[in-house]
Amino acid sequence: MIKRYNGNPVVTKDQVKPSRPGFEVIGTFNAGVTKYMGDTLLLIRVAEKPVGSSESAVPYAVYDKEKNDIVVREFSKDTEGIDISDPRIITTTDQKYLTSISHFRLARSSDGFNFTIDDKPILSPGNDYEAFGIEDPRITMLDDKYYIVYSSASTYGIVTSLASTSDFHQFHREGVIFSPDNKDVVLFPDKINGKYYALHRPSGSLYGRPDIWIAESSNLIEWGNHRRIAAVRLGMWDCERIGAGAVPFLTDRGWVEIYHGADENSRYCLGVLLLDKDEPWKVLGRSLSPLIAPESSYEKQGFFNNVIFTCGAVVDNQSIYVYYGAADESIACFTMELADVFANLEAGCV
Amino acid sequence: MIKRYNGNPVVTKDQVKPSRPGFEVIGTFNAGVTKYMGDTLLLIRVAEKPVGSSESAVPYAVYDKEKNDIVVREFSKDTEGIDISDPRIITTTDQKYLTSISHFRLARSSDGFNFTIDDKPILSPGNDYEAFGIEDPRITMLDDKYYIVYSSASTYGIVTSLASTSDFHQFHREGVIFSPDNKDVVLFPDKINGKYYALHRPSGSLYGRPDIWIAESSNLIEWGNHRRIAAVRLGMWDCERIGAGAVPFLTDRGWVEIYHGADENSRYCLGVLLLDKDEPWKVLGRSLSPLIAPESSYEKQGFFNNVIFTCGAVVDNQSIYVYYGAADESIACFTMELADVFANLEAGCV
Repeated sequence: MIKRYNGNPVVTKDQVKPSRPGFEVIGTFNAGVTKYMGDTLLLIRVAEKPVGSSESAVPYAVYDKEKNDIVVREFSKDTEGIDISDPRIITTTDQKYLTSISHFRLARSSDGFNFTIDDKPILSPGNDYEAFGIEDPRITMLDDKYYIVYSSASTYGIVTSLASTSDFHQFHREGVIFSPDNKDVVLFPDKINGKYYALHRPSGSLYGRPDIWIAESSNLIEWGNHRRIAAVRLGMWDCERIGAGAVPFLTDRGWVEIYHGADENSRYCLGVLLLDKDEPWKVLGRSLSPLIAPESSYEKQGFFNNVIFTCGAVVDNQSIYVYYGAADESIACFTMELADVFANLEAGCV
Repeated sequence: MIKRYNGNPVVTKDQVKPSRPGFEVIGTFNAGVTKYMGDTLLLIRVAEKPVGSSESAVPYAVYDKEKNDIVVREFSKDTEGIDISDPRIITTTDQKYLTSISHFRLARSSDGFNFTIDDKPILSPGNDYEAFGIEDPRITMLDDKYYIVYSSASTYGIVTSLASTSDFHQFHREGVIFSPDNKDVVLFPDKINGKYYALHRPSGSLYGRPDIWIAESSNLIEWGNHRRIAAVRLGMWDCERIGAGAVPFLTDRGWVEIYHGADENSRYCLGVLLLDKDEPWKVLGRSLSPLIAPESSYEKQGFFNNVIFTCGAVVDNQSIYVYYGAADESIACFTMELADVFANLEAGCV
């Protein structure tokens, strides 16, 4: 049975200190997760917003390369052609900006539910590709290192970047691994027939849709042989856009990928893809109905309503702990058994 | 001095036989070019259109995997929500289609101006990624093989594919090397510090624009470390979109890349990027004004007016023969000396 933790959400924005004076935390969500030294470790996306200087100002924060720091800028609400109707985006006549900027913050727990959160960011925007923030980290352990893939947003578009760490203290940036627009990238936790594999989600296409693709690599930096493996399904809960969620994990029946799908109302649910063990571009099964859909108050109401979005799960034998961003505002957890995954697939597969 | 060949265009659609009954050739343009066995060889993009069955039909052709062949389908002009106002595209309520489908045809010349064109396609759409056609080939010789990068269009989006050949007879498909939407890819003709390099043009981004990026590779299939190297320039001739054109060639002063830029009226001109010899992501110079702009009748009027678009040039000592698609309909050629390239750069650089 799929069980929401009864102390949900496990992390809320009130528990997190802003990274600097003049900023407020507006969301703590979409966390990468891994086991590290016996603890459950969350790499939390923390979204912050500069507090406005006046009623007529529209402030926003960006990383500035010259200053090598995050700086606050603002538009006047009277700027010709400005559109601030979407609370997430400032649209001007020649460029879009984000109203918030995200960094990553570490949290640790010995029981998987009660977390101690760092006071300071562990990774912050640090180059031109990250000027609008870093988002939605996924953690994969490979070759005795932890690799973090994350979205970087800027005037260059939304790209996927790679960083590595051995100790969750020092991080090494490895560069941009998928060009714009591309997000929802997860690395498989093992080589398959000598190659690394990743799921990714190119978007913004003239003819195509936001579908899930697979790519292969010899060195984790360079990716190719792109293949589309799963498409949005018209008329269903995942009709509008889909993307990989948790890092895939291997079972007797193949790789289990917990992905997200959004419908025409931007309701985000989670579902399952079952991928062939040796040929992971082959889809063996796919949820007909969601594994989990927004139902609880913290999933239905928040910064962006009706969102369940995962960046990672912890698999402990037959038990799976799925951590997810709820309504783009807090982090919640549900647990299930492997049998629940297969029951969902058996209830109807495409 | 930049000199248009006085026998331009060098290839027109009237010289090319349709690939099958019921098709008409509507354009021969955007050709890859290389020297091969002493000849100048063009790999021509040939666009064809099925001849309509009736006045009320909107026919289109796609590659069908089941049949392993190109098939003709049609919409009725009365289909609800259909839009055929753009002569290139059929827009339905849930998908865009192309009115024409492109393949590649070989042409050979001993003098670079008079071409003998094959009767049959040398490479045709052959998989799901190519269902709407293959377009805009660029040829680079590397490691004693010829590599052809080309755009593949389908309901999956516009991707860049790679094929190789040793003899321009047998071609081997190497897979999709850039995920959607990405086109205008050129491979550098040499490794630089042990890596292969390519220029590419991701597009369709939420925050970004259609700019020129560079990527590196160890094996030509897998690409990473993406960096944006040149952006569109607001208010200039290349304000709307830019993309690599000819395969870059090395000079004493660095790599010369002849690229295309389009303005707000979709007028396509060519300009020059000068890239550092050892660090090709560094732009040393860029044309302030176009190297060449549409002026001649065959450039100003055709399937799509006011277009000069190159996929390749032949460099013969100090002389450069640039082949280009004119008005998306025919192939023309202009010649220049290396000094003309530098004169254009010296007239004003950004």
